[in-house]
Amino acid sequence: MDDLKAFRQWRSSTPGHPENFETPGVEVTTGPLGQGFANAVGLALAEKHLAARFNKTDLKIVDHYTYVILGDGCQMEGISNEAASLAGHWGLGKLIAFYDDNHISIDGSTDIAFTEDVLARYEALGWHTIWVKNGNTGYADIRAAIKEAKGVIDKPTLIKVTTTIGFGSPNKANTYSVHGSALGSKEVEATRSNLGWFHEPFHVPDEVKRHWSYHIDEGASLEAEWNAKFAEYEKKYHQEAAALKSIISGELPSGWDNVLPTYTPESSPDATRNLSQQCLNTLATVIPGFLGGSADLATSNMTLLKMFGDFQRDTPEERNIRFGVREHGMGAISNGIAVHSPGLIPYCATFFVFTDYMRAAIRLSALSESGVIFVMTHDSIGLGEDGPTHQPVEHLFSLRAMPNILMLRPADGNETSGAYRIAILNRKRPSILALSRQKLPQLKGTSVDAVSKGGYTISDNSSGNKPDLILIGTGSELQIAEKAADELRKEGRTVRVVSLVCWELFEEQPEEYKESVFPNEVTSRISIEAGVTFGWEKYVGQKGKAIGIDHFGSSAPAGKIYKELGLTVESVIAAAKDL
Amino acid sequence: MDDLKAFRQWRSSTPGHPENFETPGVEVTTGPLGQGFANAVGLALAEKHLAARFNKTDLKIVDHYTYVILGDGCQMEGISNEAASLAGHWGLGKLIAFYDDNHISIDGSTDIAFTEDVLARYEALGWHTIWVKNGNTGYADIRAAIKEAKGVIDKPTLIKVTTTIGFGSPNKANTYSVHGSALGSKEVEATRSNLGWFHEPFHVPDEVKRHWSYHIDEGASLEAEWNAKFAEYEKKYHQEAAALKSIISGELPSGWDNVLPTYTPESSPDATRNLSQQCLNTLATVIPGFLGGSADLATSNMTLLKMFGDFQRDTPEERNIRFGVREHGMGAISNGIAVHSPGLIPYCATFFVFTDYMRAAIRLSALSESGVIFVMTHDSIGLGEDGPTHQPVEHLFSLRAMPNILMLRPADGNETSGAYRIAILNRKRPSILALSRQKLPQLKGTSVDAVSKGGYTISDNSSGNKPDLILIGTGSELQIAEKAADELRKEGRTVRVVSLVCWELFEEQPEEYKESVFPNEVTSRISIEAGVTFGWEKYVGQKGKAIGIDHFGSSAPAGKIYKELGLTVESVIAAAKDL
Repeated sequence: MDDLKAFRQWRSSTPGHPENFETPGVEVTTGPLGQGFANAVGLALAEKHLAARFNKTDLKIVDHYTYVILGDGCQMEGISNEAASLAGHWGLGKLIAFYDDNHISIDGSTDIAFTEDVLARYEALGWHTIWVKNGNTGYADIRAAIKEAKGVIDKPTLIKVTTTIGFGSPNKANTYSVHGSALGSKEVEATRSNLGWFHEPFHVPDEVKRHWSYHIDEGASLEAEWNAKFAEYEKKYHQEAAALKSIISGELPSGWDNVLPTYTPESSPDATRNLSQQCLNTLATVIPGFLGGSADLATSNMTLLKMFGDFQRDTPEERNIRFGVREHGMGAISNGIAVHSPGLIPYCATFFVFTDYMRAAIRLSALSESGVIFVMTHDSIGLGEDGPTHQPVEHLFSLRAMPNILMLRPADGNETSGAYRIAILNRKRPSILALSRQKLPQLKGTSVDAVSKGGYTISDNSSGNKPDLILIGTGSELQIAEKAADELRKEGRTVRVVSLVCWELFEEQPEEYKESVFPNEVTSRISIEAGVTFGWEKYVGQKGKAIGIDHFGSSAPAGKIYKELGLTVESVIAAAKDL
Repeated sequence: MDDLKAFRQWRSSTPGHPENFETPGVEVTTGPLGQGFANAVGLALAEKHLAARFNKTDLKIVDHYTYVILGDGCQMEGISNEAASLAGHWGLGKLIAFYDDNHISIDGSTDIAFTEDVLARYEALGWHTIWVKNGNTGYADIRAAIKEAKGVIDKPTLIKVTTTIGFGSPNKANTYSVHGSALGSKEVEATRSNLGWFHEPFHVPDEVKRHWSYHIDEGASLEAEWNAKFAEYEKKYHQEAAALKSIISGELPSGWDNVLPTYTPESSPDATRNLSQQCLNTLATVIPGFLGGSADLATSNMTLLKMFGDFQRDTPEERNIRFGVREHGMGAISNGIAVHSPGLIPYCATFFVFTDYMRAAIRLSALSESGVIFVMTHDSIGLGEDGPTHQPVEHLFSLRAMPNILMLRPADGNETSGAYRIAILNRKRPSILALSRQKLPQLKGTSVDAVSKGGYTISDNSSGNKPDLILIGTGSELQIAEKAADELRKEGRTVRVVSLVCWELFEEQPEEYKESVFPNEVTSRISIEAGVTFGWEKYVGQKGKAIGIDHFGSSAPAGKIYKELGLTVESVIAAAKDL
């Protein structure tokens, strides 16, 4: 009750929008429109997947509905159409959505911007639809609609419930002024009187309390029932029970990270997107809740799990999810999968530049502590011919700036394995992996474990922590730094090369470690990264130099662009001589 | 022909995706799916608006169709549903969209992720629909469909044209392998033979050349006809012709910026979102092509033009555009309006945090040099109760990192007017204005003109360009810097306060000017901004301190959050004493 009284106040459990990390019982963080609905599609997907994998003819161990309420605003957002199209395609029959059709949004009547036929659109998307015309008091109709929805098992159901916003308020009902503002004491009085509600503020009559409390016992008995059922399941289906337990608890099988491949400088050069595929495919063999897919770029992102088929309407036990070209929906659906069970670890993929399409979902992943793994390939101008619309330039920084997320840019095979190790371990902090389209050499000095420090020295010919020069690289440019260092060392310089694979993790290291990588007194520092130089001041300082690209890219073969834009060994050497 | 031979090569006019700034005749930059379709809705909106404003019963001076081709990928993207819903709502009868239904996307058959009934969805969105079943060779059917579409004047038309991708290629047609890869010489041979095309590569037979050249004369004669008509229009409707000329040429009326309001420290404190409304409303009186709106937050963003009504199906001459909750569509539609005519200056608005929903459109605005004005209010934790989902933290940086865009964060009335002046003047570089929800004082030392320098001193009690300390603020935190400076000055320190309203413009100033604001030898520098500190190293250096928020916000009244998170005068003073 104190929390209710502290609505929208500092550190209360009743913030302005529901937050899963603030309030027990809140399953997802919503507020930005359409996200919660897409989360629900992810929750329903998770249920359908787990049910198909774990239920037995004699024991239905996974069996629940997913309910979601959405408003006019949610319906207008593109993300909800993306998610609804997928829900229809997948036939998520246990997803039941209530559309609160109150025909009012913040700018007033929806007539001014939203006159489409929503139910017809959902039917076109493969949904079953029902219209409850009196949502204010038509309880029997609502109950009947739910019953009907439960009877339709091959399609999700949208129940349009026509309501009056601010129902009961004599002067403000059916206006936008009840959306986000308090009624005010006078109108509260008028509303109480109108509804015949004469109790003190914040008083819950015993009758109401009793009615709600009934669900406490009901819930406890359902839980006991399920526990008994699971005990039986465990006896009969030992292996499946162990996997399901791991999914429910989030406990990783011991030694899981031993499967991650390691490399030596003699290993073949390869694109980090291919090396990523190795990781995905090995991880899927040991982590029972590992699943995911791409927004129609599986063969470019290299994200197919080869031992599994596609999660589809009739094969929901499979683990390759085909999101279609729906990045935003994909992100939010993945968030929903992640919060369904701690041991479900979803990954989702597109070109790195298209994080722009799904940025709101990525932010909610970070805010709501959903440990989704964002596999983002084609991470620079190195993708070549597709040109500037497809070439990320500012994206590394724009995502390094986001709180509670790890932006990882591995340089080769060891770092890619290290990045996945970090991503899997961070269950309350999503990870973004920026991966190359182009082949990269396996470097000497990189390691799986060192990625956990975010930044580390891969080569150094100095002693006493005082090199003449520090070269810093990430991802596909680390090899350029290393080659430039080789040249400069031939000329007698002492040069350290640092891989700054994850800035966030590096910043979390103790000062002493940071000083061992970037000694304060060494101010000759050069960074090279195929993106904006903005932000690199942090590590190169005011006396150093950042080599990068502070404008949009261009359509041409990758090698040509690197050369024309000066991302070369020669540029680094020239800069070193200039410092 | 040389350009065709240089397909996807460095600096050719035939890059991997069409770019309006590279290739004459290309009207919009596309590639990221769904954007071009939403641009087309903007182009059609512009036509409908200008036709309604300028056509006379005897002289139809604005009268053209907008054609757009979109594929399966575009249809899956949420942005296209947003744009289609608006096009249907507005009744854009002269918009004709061809949906290339080739049922293949990059991951193969669309059956794996896209099984909705597209035509039924468009009908639900208020479109007229036509299906051409043989799009490979059914030219007569396509012509008939266009004719039918032109006959439907109250609805946009979607023509679904079922085709075979790679039609004619005997071994690769109807597969994703013809999407982005060259056929290869063997398959090119097979295709030529299959289609009976036996000319040399890059040879255009005279007959074909003649057929296409026909349009040169046709176009010239249409242009001459229009010029004659316009000459007549100018004589009869002098005033309208002047306005239309300004819209077509992009030439601003002389003295247009005199209408921007100015303020003194005695003027009332106000939220910059309200001050922005003053600017929008004065600019609309002098700039004939100024129009725009909000994504269902007009009364929060303060973006209504009071002298105009709503652009709607039956009142297209009006200038307030109601986008509904469709940020992504809004951005891309605005890009379309901007490229329709140089003198159309669209603004669009939402909460600053929701730039995340429209980031892909903002990036295309920057890349395609569409001078859209993005009016982004509620620009920090200062929005208060709505909580972390609505509180931007990383957004200033994530947008400062984007090339070719101006990120402006004005501190008061003068700077808000200055920001609009810059936004209007930059027709090939979009502007984002971050504006406060909360009231801010009118500061001494700010000015409309100084905004053009991006950063400038607003107060200083030092001499000889050597203050003891430089305090840097932006937007709503500039007042905190100023108050802290006052306190520190009382203690005998010399303190300079700098407003860094637009980093991009400041970076473009001559070194000499930059040195006059941030003298190299003054290393005691403190910044304060209600956002991530990441990136501030650029100006505060390694010896300075950045005060900000490196985590998500919280739901509470604004004053409380500022205090709890340490964005206070006391924090600045404490930091100054610590340096």
